[in-house]
Amino acid sequence: MKIALAQPNVTVGDIEGNVKKILQFFSQAAKLDADVVVFPELCISGYPPEDLLLKSHFIEDNHLALEQLAKDCADKDIIVCVGFAEKNPKGFFNSLAVLQAGHLRKIYRKIILPNYGVFDEKRYFRTGNEPVIINIKGVNVILTICEDVWQPHWLSVLLKDSPRVDLIINASASPFHIGKIQQRHRILGSLAKYFDCTIAYCNLVGGQDELVFDGRSMFLDHKGDVVSQAKAFAEDLITADIEKSTGGKADGKIRMEIVNSKRHASAAAPDDIEDIYHALVLGTRDYALKNCFSKAIVALSGGVDSAVTAAIAVDALGSENVVGLTMPSQFNSPQTIKDAAVVAENLDMEFRTIPITPVLEGFSRTLAGVEGWVDKGIPYENLQARVRGTILMSLSNQFSYLVLTTGNKSEIAVGYSTLYGDTAGGFAAIKDVPKTVVYKLADFINKIHQRQIIPKSVCERPPSAELRHNQKDSDSLPEYDLLDKILKGYIEDDKSSKELVEQGLPQDVVERVIRMVDFNEYKRRQYPPGIKITPRAFGRDRRMPITNLYKR
Amino acid sequence: MKIALAQPNVTVGDIEGNVKKILQFFSQAAKLDADVVVFPELCISGYPPEDLLLKSHFIEDNHLALEQLAKDCADKDIIVCVGFAEKNPKGFFNSLAVLQAGHLRKIYRKIILPNYGVFDEKRYFRTGNEPVIINIKGVNVILTICEDVWQPHWLSVLLKDSPRVDLIINASASPFHIGKIQQRHRILGSLAKYFDCTIAYCNLVGGQDELVFDGRSMFLDHKGDVVSQAKAFAEDLITADIEKSTGGKADGKIRMEIVNSKRHASAAAPDDIEDIYHALVLGTRDYALKNCFSKAIVALSGGVDSAVTAAIAVDALGSENVVGLTMPSQFNSPQTIKDAAVVAENLDMEFRTIPITPVLEGFSRTLAGVEGWVDKGIPYENLQARVRGTILMSLSNQFSYLVLTTGNKSEIAVGYSTLYGDTAGGFAAIKDVPKTVVYKLADFINKIHQRQIIPKSVCERPPSAELRHNQKDSDSLPEYDLLDKILKGYIEDDKSSKELVEQGLPQDVVERVIRMVDFNEYKRRQYPPGIKITPRAFGRDRRMPITNLYKR
Repeated sequence: MKIALAQPNVTVGDIEGNVKKILQFFSQAAKLDADVVVFPELCISGYPPEDLLLKSHFIEDNHLALEQLAKDCADKDIIVCVGFAEKNPKGFFNSLAVLQAGHLRKIYRKIILPNYGVFDEKRYFRTGNEPVIINIKGVNVILTICEDVWQPHWLSVLLKDSPRVDLIINASASPFHIGKIQQRHRILGSLAKYFDCTIAYCNLVGGQDELVFDGRSMFLDHKGDVVSQAKAFAEDLITADIEKSTGGKADGKIRMEIVNSKRHASAAAPDDIEDIYHALVLGTRDYALKNCFSKAIVALSGGVDSAVTAAIAVDALGSENVVGLTMPSQFNSPQTIKDAAVVAENLDMEFRTIPITPVLEGFSRTLAGVEGWVDKGIPYENLQARVRGTILMSLSNQFSYLVLTTGNKSEIAVGYSTLYGDTAGGFAAIKDVPKTVVYKLADFINKIHQRQIIPKSVCERPPSAELRHNQKDSDSLPEYDLLDKILKGYIEDDKSSKELVEQGLPQDVVERVIRMVDFNEYKRRQYPPGIKITPRAFGRDRRMPITNLYKR
Repeated sequence: MKIALAQPNVTVGDIEGNVKKILQFFSQAAKLDADVVVFPELCISGYPPEDLLLKSHFIEDNHLALEQLAKDCADKDIIVCVGFAEKNPKGFFNSLAVLQAGHLRKIYRKIILPNYGVFDEKRYFRTGNEPVIINIKGVNVILTICEDVWQPHWLSVLLKDSPRVDLIINASASPFHIGKIQQRHRILGSLAKYFDCTIAYCNLVGGQDELVFDGRSMFLDHKGDVVSQAKAFAEDLITADIEKSTGGKADGKIRMEIVNSKRHASAAAPDDIEDIYHALVLGTRDYALKNCFSKAIVALSGGVDSAVTAAIAVDALGSENVVGLTMPSQFNSPQTIKDAAVVAENLDMEFRTIPITPVLEGFSRTLAGVEGWVDKGIPYENLQARVRGTILMSLSNQFSYLVLTTGNKSEIAVGYSTLYGDTAGGFAAIKDVPKTVVYKLADFINKIHQRQIIPKSVCERPPSAELRHNQKDSDSLPEYDLLDKILKGYIEDDKSSKELVEQGLPQDVVERVIRMVDFNEYKRRQYPPGIKITPRAFGRDRRMPITNLYKR
């Protein structure tokens, strides 16, 4: 029995386009003589469809598309397993359809609905309660959807009166974050061992707002080893032949086993920085293109954040589609202005310079008329950032550029930014990347380009917002190594200040950082979307009240 | 048996302050010789605590506060029912503690967890599964929390082997929207009739980010009639005596009945516009004060949105704490500039004028250097709005003003606004108010002030953004009467374009409006928070993808 796993890059809401893409992968599977082809969770609607699922006509359109798909696949002798949003008299379900010979043969309804982190599935769906087992050419196959397999014990309860399972199919829409693929290997591996069977894991690929799905569909054998794995961050289709083993293996058992799969998985764990980089490129590309932007603009400050953002944008959209803009004031050093130009040149981008001093002076003259206005300090620093934000947005409006915001997770966490200033923009590529990781990305970018795309001076200069003379980030913030440790503990691990201090972090700094994080929730609420790469990103992943007097 | 319902205005995360407030209400109940005093759902933590609930030290602090509260209430012979976030070996629960004589006597755990609209309770809590019935001076009381009573049939299943219930206590945190109080009356009324018993409904009051809790705790008799109701949009405490009836009533049955309650409810349904106004005032006041702003600034354009926002701010914070700012350009008519000043004068606010033309000309000169920049059209209109946004934010930074954004729901829905321009600000009081309702609020404001606070010319002039000569909203948008009908159908009722057209709305306009709503999700994502007053507000209440190709 030959099984194919398809990982298409579909788009939320584009039911017609998604079905077209499903048919392309179906044809490819047919050419390879597959007996069954599996598509990801909610592949027809795209994932996550969020509140589109509250529209009954959206669900109807899912059903209509599924019926049409069944007909369009009728002429080939392949079973299609595809995720769709189902409505039946009992309610709404996150379902997997089994199409065969032009008909909807079976439906499996997801039983374990994730409702944590970025997931809101209990907002939309009821839980299914029946296992679906199908026999394909002698192979007993159980269908599951994503979260279903993250808790093997309930599966075993559910299956206690069922025939032996040879193969578990899992249709997923599992978003990327650092360490997620290792987690999947671990969980699917123990699932395979637990049931002593083969696993076929099919995952979505592509960017959807703040999420990137990394693909890497895979087959695992009954020992829990990955036999083959599809591409990361790209569309792909992989196949495996599953046949009765001879029983000549170590334990002498006769099983349905993978006897042939096209692509062998690399045993090595992926490099985190490489993974992050590819996630950011795919997320940026898909956000831009799926929202009909072909061009982007990045404000190049001469710092590392904007340099990394520009490099990601160029990889995502092509250097001919990315514009670099520098907006110097009297506070920018000649070196940073030069570095901005060098980055643009190295990336082969269009580069523009618009000095902000004349406009800034205009504001100063106007605000001088306001009693109490002081033309220095934080209000004046913010003003500079807002003049830049306004210029960027003006060019965006005039030339239909997507403005790529350049803030990193560390500064967003502590609110070291100007609302409507450097926070302005449509998409924030490195929003979830801690500053210490931004430096690693810079090194990685230089490595893949095999030359110093991002100049040494950019990475070695002490970070500065350059909003006053000789300003340094370290005037206002702890060093980034320390800051990022505190932020990880507080934001990702939900530690209290007490616990962080017990870990050996300095109490005064911990308490100051926590105050800054809590105080700046209002700024984050208005921040552009950006790509989740950590286990807990700002946005839908971390839902904190703005009005909040809790102080631990 | 005397029961008291307390509706304090607590703050999320302020565990210490909330307990202090609970003790004040406790003392008041003690003075009135109450046998039991009921507090709202999650009263100790504030509602909704959102992801604070993921911090285990936050839950621990809830428990510690509860223990302390039990001790602090020990010297009076009153039972206290108070909502708190509970952790026990089975998981986390949304619970109601019964405190008596210094001890935690019982715990009821919420069974029906709402996970729709603004509610995410399944993200945090497990469902309870046991009814808790206590006997207070011969009265059999069942404890319930909020959503529990919205489906009476499950309660009856749960209670089938229990003794007769005389009184249902419901501790709620039920946010306001138009029509919600009528809905509560209906649901609680049918609950009373279903169980043939008295209802004591205790609701929270106060603003929390986008939500306003309207209080109106109440007692209903077994016929489902409201016997007494606490204040709307203000702290309050009401009591009732519940005693065995004589059986001399119409049906001759002997019941536990309300024999005395201090405040009689008005039989009349509240006026929607009055309710909305009070919700907006309370929501604005609480957002400002709970976030430590004592002063606010409003950009007065001479239009109705900013006039209404200013009136709300003055009512919320006092006229001495609200500053009006007008920022005229060459496109503002003398009449609108004058109207802005008249509104400020009528509201007795400080009023400042900062013309934007010099700064705007500075931008024009600077942008003239960019090939392709055209100093007119939408980019130039947006530029004007962003200059104003920047000035407002500069004053906010300099003088610690909360900037009140003035956009209404209709324009936010269709994106008729400039990101970082007129959308800039900390809080958007009328964010969820359709334009047609803004006019009604203007009339209401004039009515309560008993004079023309908002001049006739403001309400009668065709709405205009005044970003070019002779501009009118109707150049770009359908008339607001029609627009608001389409928006209600599309946003609140989840209707498709087809269904809206079948209702008699013009197809071309419907399709254009839907396109505008969908296209502008990205602007809404960066909009300041504002008060929910409709059954579906933008924000946590309506979670739509930005990347979304669905077009119906």
